[in-house]
Amino acid sequence: MYYIGRKMQLTVFGESHGKGVGALITGLPPGHRINPAAIDREMARRKPGAYGTPRKEPDSWEILSGIYRGHTTGMPLAIWVPNLDPRPDDYTDMPFRPGHADYTAHIKYRGAEDPRGGGHFSGRLTAPLVAAGAILKDILKPLGVTVTSNVAAVGGKSDPKEIQAALARAKAEKDSLGGIVDLCIAGVPAGIGGPRFRGLESGLSAAYFALGAVKGVSFGAGFDAANKKGSENNDPFRIKGGAVVTETNHAGGILGGIATGSDIVAHIAVKPTPTIGKEQNTVDRSGKEISFAATGRHDTAIVLRIPVALEAMSALVILDEIALVRGEL
Amino acid sequence: MYYIGRKMQLTVFGESHGKGVGALITGLPPGHRINPAAIDREMARRKPGAYGTPRKEPDSWEILSGIYRGHTTGMPLAIWVPNLDPRPDDYTDMPFRPGHADYTAHIKYRGAEDPRGGGHFSGRLTAPLVAAGAILKDILKPLGVTVTSNVAAVGGKSDPKEIQAALARAKAEKDSLGGIVDLCIAGVPAGIGGPRFRGLESGLSAAYFALGAVKGVSFGAGFDAANKKGSENNDPFRIKGGAVVTETNHAGGILGGIATGSDIVAHIAVKPTPTIGKEQNTVDRSGKEISFAATGRHDTAIVLRIPVALEAMSALVILDEIALVRGEL
Amino acid sequence: MYYIGRKMQLTVFGESHGKGVGALITGLPPGHRINPAAIDREMARRKPGAYGTPRKEPDSWEILSGIYRGHTTGMPLAIWVPNLDPRPDDYTDMPFRPGHADYTAHIKYRGAEDPRGGGHFSGRLTAPLVAAGAILKDILKPLGVTVTSNVAAVGGKSDPKEIQAALARAKAEKDSLGGIVDLCIAGVPAGIGGPRFRGLESGLSAAYFALGAVKGVSFGAGFDAANKKGSENNDPFRIKGGAVVTETNHAGGILGGIATGSDIVAHIAVKPTPTIGKEQNTVDRSGKEISFAATGRHDTAIVLRIPVALEAMSALVILDEIALVRGEL
Amino acid sequence: MYYIGRKMQLTVFGESHGKGVGALITGLPPGHRINPAAIDREMARRKPGAYGTPRKEPDSWEILSGIYRGHTTGMPLAIWVPNLDPRPDDYTDMPFRPGHADYTAHIKYRGAEDPRGGGHFSGRLTAPLVAAGAILKDILKPLGVTVTSNVAAVGGKSDPKEIQAALARAKAEKDSLGGIVDLCIAGVPAGIGGPRFRGLESGLSAAYFALGAVKGVSFGAGFDAANKKGSENNDPFRIKGGAVVTETNHAGGILGGIATGSDIVAHIAVKPTPTIGKEQNTVDRSGKEISFAATGRHDTAIVLRIPVALEAMSALVILDEIALVRGEL
Repeated sequence: MYYIGRKMQLTVFGESHGKGVGALITGLPPGHRINPAAIDREMARRKPGAYGTPRKEPDSWEILSGIYRGHTTGMPLAIWVPNLDPRPDDYTDMPFRPGHADYTAHIKYRGAEDPRGGGHFSGRLTAPLVAAGAILKDILKPLGVTVTSNVAAVGGKSDPKEIQAALARAKAEKDSLGGIVDLCIAGVPAGIGGPRFRGLESGLSAAYFALGAVKGVSFGAGFDAANKKGSENNDPFRIKGGAVVTETNHAGGILGGIATGSDIVAHIAVKPTPTIGKEQNTVDRSGKEISFAATGRHDTAIVLRIPVALEAMSALVILDEIALVRGEL
Repeated sequence: MYYIGRKMQLTVFGESHGKGVGALITGLPPGHRINPAAIDREMARRKPGAYGTPRKEPDSWEILSGIYRGHTTGMPLAIWVPNLDPRPDDYTDMPFRPGHADYTAHIKYRGAEDPRGGGHFSGRLTAPLVAAGAILKDILKPLGVTVTSNVAAVGGKSDPKEIQAALARAKAEKDSLGGIVDLCIAGVPAGIGGPRFRGLESGLSAAYFALGAVKGVSFGAGFDAANKKGSENNDPFRIKGGAVVTETNHAGGILGGIATGSDIVAHIAVKPTPTIGKEQNTVDRSGKEISFAATGRHDTAIVLRIPVALEAMSALVILDEIALVRGEL
Repeated sequence: MYYIGRKMQLTVFGESHGKGVGALITGLPPGHRINPAAIDREMARRKPGAYGTPRKEPDSWEILSGIYRGHTTGMPLAIWVPNLDPRPDDYTDMPFRPGHADYTAHIKYRGAEDPRGGGHFSGRLTAPLVAAGAILKDILKPLGVTVTSNVAAVGGKSDPKEIQAALARAKAEKDSLGGIVDLCIAGVPAGIGGPRFRGLESGLSAAYFALGAVKGVSFGAGFDAANKKGSENNDPFRIKGGAVVTETNHAGGILGGIATGSDIVAHIAVKPTPTIGKEQNTVDRSGKEISFAATGRHDTAIVLRIPVALEAMSALVILDEIALVRGEL
Repeated sequence: MYYIGRKMQLTVFGESHGKGVGALITGLPPGHRINPAAIDREMARRKPGAYGTPRKEPDSWEILSGIYRGHTTGMPLAIWVPNLDPRPDDYTDMPFRPGHADYTAHIKYRGAEDPRGGGHFSGRLTAPLVAAGAILKDILKPLGVTVTSNVAAVGGKSDPKEIQAALARAKAEKDSLGGIVDLCIAGVPAGIGGPRFRGLESGLSAAYFALGAVKGVSFGAGFDAANKKGSENNDPFRIKGGAVVTETNHAGGILGGIATGSDIVAHIAVKPTPTIGKEQNTVDRSGKEISFAATGRHDTAIVLRIPVALEAMSALVILDEIALVRGEL
């Protein structure tokens, strides 16, 4: 239940200010050469930029198992990203931060949770996810599948200059911004996926919502489809070069849970970073109402760093579905 | 994989124009009295109204297993809804309907799929889901959990009069409309759910997207959260009557995958019925481009009939999570 | 959890003296022609013979879903075997039969269980399993895999004449006998299966023990391996016709959870039918110690009827593993 | 699929001569104090004695995640046991050892497997299992459940003196011996478990057979039940101190997959260590028939070291079932 995937399964473990964070992937195809540069490149994409947390996260990673002479063996592959710059004291006796999982984790785990920086609920857990994603995307490449993404909007702005201005303003105000990520999974063969609970939208959305900041997921025309007529929203089939194709892609590449062969297109709503430097009302761990301004490190907009993690989730779900349909790759 | 649920599991079986459609639920708590009137009531909510398919669906249902003297035994409960008015000939040699799963199912199952009215991919499969949902909602009631929904918009209109006008227009044009459903799950105790892949948003969205017409799912502020600042989107905690509460609910009742104790609020984008009477370009099963106008029975707006199915899905996911946390109920 | 299988999943539902008993199989390959005669033949193998229960079980079966024009569609396939000769009154207020699940079910389901003839715990549930097994074995055939079995011993006797004498004696004494079934799964390609929890022995034993009368499972040399030296128990590899083979098969066709390519050989210990006509001490449902002699219908030796059910379980596990490795068949 | 457990899940990762071996457990109850001495004690029980491999395995262990201030947090708990004394060269170009998974892994993973000492298929993978088991048994203790085991036979001998003599002889002959382990799980409340595929025998046997050396599993009277009459094998119920009990326990504490409340008793057949110093015929990795005598380190009888691993597997399955029935502990 802490896993995603049906044949190939992935989970993450670790805490923000513990020893480190890790991912475990089972069911990987054997004989795939690990590309350390690709992992480094993806890890770098997750690094905070000008509007990210000033926490130093060199994010060195290590593969603990599942490889031999630089290739996957098909056995469980564990990736470990040690925490080199933990600052547990920043978070001791932290009140329940509004918008964060501090309170819900406290209730669920009856006070036994690791409270330091959100513990297991921290965005830091996306680090091993991203490392895993680099491997998964690399395995998808020779199968003709690529996963790309872009930040479509930040704080309601989609023009790059306006985004920069909004970010600067929010940072100055010790506030944060949300945004939208557009994802594109190209090259998924028609027929991948399945009906109902095995559908691609079910699998992908479950994976995306596993990232705590995601509050909305749509495919193709998405929420706009609700405003359309059937004659506008349907994608008429035609024949092109002997193949059945559509010219529009309002379906976002998925009909009845199954890939059409068109690009799979998803839109992800990302909430503003809940931890902010601005004063907020909240409750401390003794149950007293207080006013609180976070002093720790935090991002102005998580949406700037989350795309590579969303790509990783996409890669897992799609590779898993291909493995289900094609067998051991 | 054709199942939803972690401890309690549900699947559907059957085809639109086969012998019938059914649902199987495992892991139900024993000793719960089945309320046939509640099942009938929910089945009636799914029935086509003025803008629904004129297909006669009396939707008599039968429980095949898992009950004794009118109570659940805790054993697998199978519900069967026979097809009393199948018209298989309406669908013979149907071309690939744009926006429907006809084409993707054909590719995936290499021509072995049941093509009559979409077969297993038909909206008719929601009938046993709804019957199951009636039982699940009944079991949730004494636990203090209620699931309700409303159609928030049809064809971009939210005013009831405007909705009626839009529906009349679409019907006259032999076209169809999409819409938005708002769902509210009240009474879920704080602490239900879990982190990452066990999160409530992952579970609920996977269940909702299992309905083929759903193209977007969001929770709380949802896509609007993307336009907000952290200070606006966070729900400040306070103490009320000794309990930790929030006054706003932008989180939609879920933080870090775990219930906050506030209402769980979801928004679902439903695409317009793909089968329309209006002419559309498409491809027939021999691979020829044709123009096609559906003559079979179909709904002007699926969104009018889908809410009770979405409630059923919600009930399954929430009851399952409660059972995981509380044990055998 | 009520399912077996990883990609292809099977469950059973129904009760001994309810409306009927059924099986649901998801993930079947599409386009496979259903062979009704093969199903009838397997159902007949399960029928009681001279030493079976005199209950009339014509075991007519019906496929409710998942087929079109006589072929599998790849959608969930439900098989239903109605109970034509239920005698619920035989079982009303039955005390807790020693050796049966009456008492444990009563505790687990807090008195809400269907007590008639063991309800869901009855051996009658193997009827739909056997029907499903007929389909599964038919799908395995063109893949070169066959599943066969034989009753190796009854009541400690392996000579056919002695078995007949022991059965006659046990029947006369209103007692029952246990026995041993030998199973052989031939043609499983080397490499099917996987390490640890994905191992073939884990999958097969879990399936066999799902039949309530099974109390022991071993593979190859099995319990005899415990008495051997490594030099005796190892199967030396050799080259024969260019392929790696072994001349002995103490491993029972499985090493490290993975098929060697030799026959998979399993031995199953089946306990004597717990329901006997002989007087036994037990406790009734009011908690009173009583002496009890069963008057209902029952088998002298379940072991005579269980082989075809064990074959069905084998077929499910092996087909599932092949589907995992080979993809959609 | 590489996991065992339904609510609480466990897997292992790592290789015999790689960086180390680990276990990951999800779904643990929060707030349980980790007892390092108990882990050390269990690790010591797994250590080779006089007849074990002379490999130095100090088996220091480290918990990477899932604990805070010495207590479980309820988050995934990763245990890591580094390989301090790997001797990869002992195993380079090792032929396919008879009775080992070398050949089947080679076929399955198409030559990409880690061949050093069996890689992931090595008995070394039981080290983190045993560490996990120590934690699980500690959590079971306050629930009144204890898991114990003993070596009932080695090389067909059950008298301690005869066992010692047989071991000495086998060692001198550079051969190995198999044996039988008896397991007892006491204190499991009646009602734990479930029917069919959720049965305790299914869960436990799948866990035991995940250890490569296990070739047979039985419960209670086990294979002897096959030789008994129903009147001998049934355990008559009686009332004792107001509770329903049985005086015999031929059922091994399980009826219909559900705990009776009596001790759960299992018998495990363990094959002789396949790696032996004696000459054996086999095939090398170039496909040539050769004669081979292992020079690496190996146990005279795995059965002496496996009991603590079998206890760990038992603890996982039972704790998981209790958690399913009782909810979050």
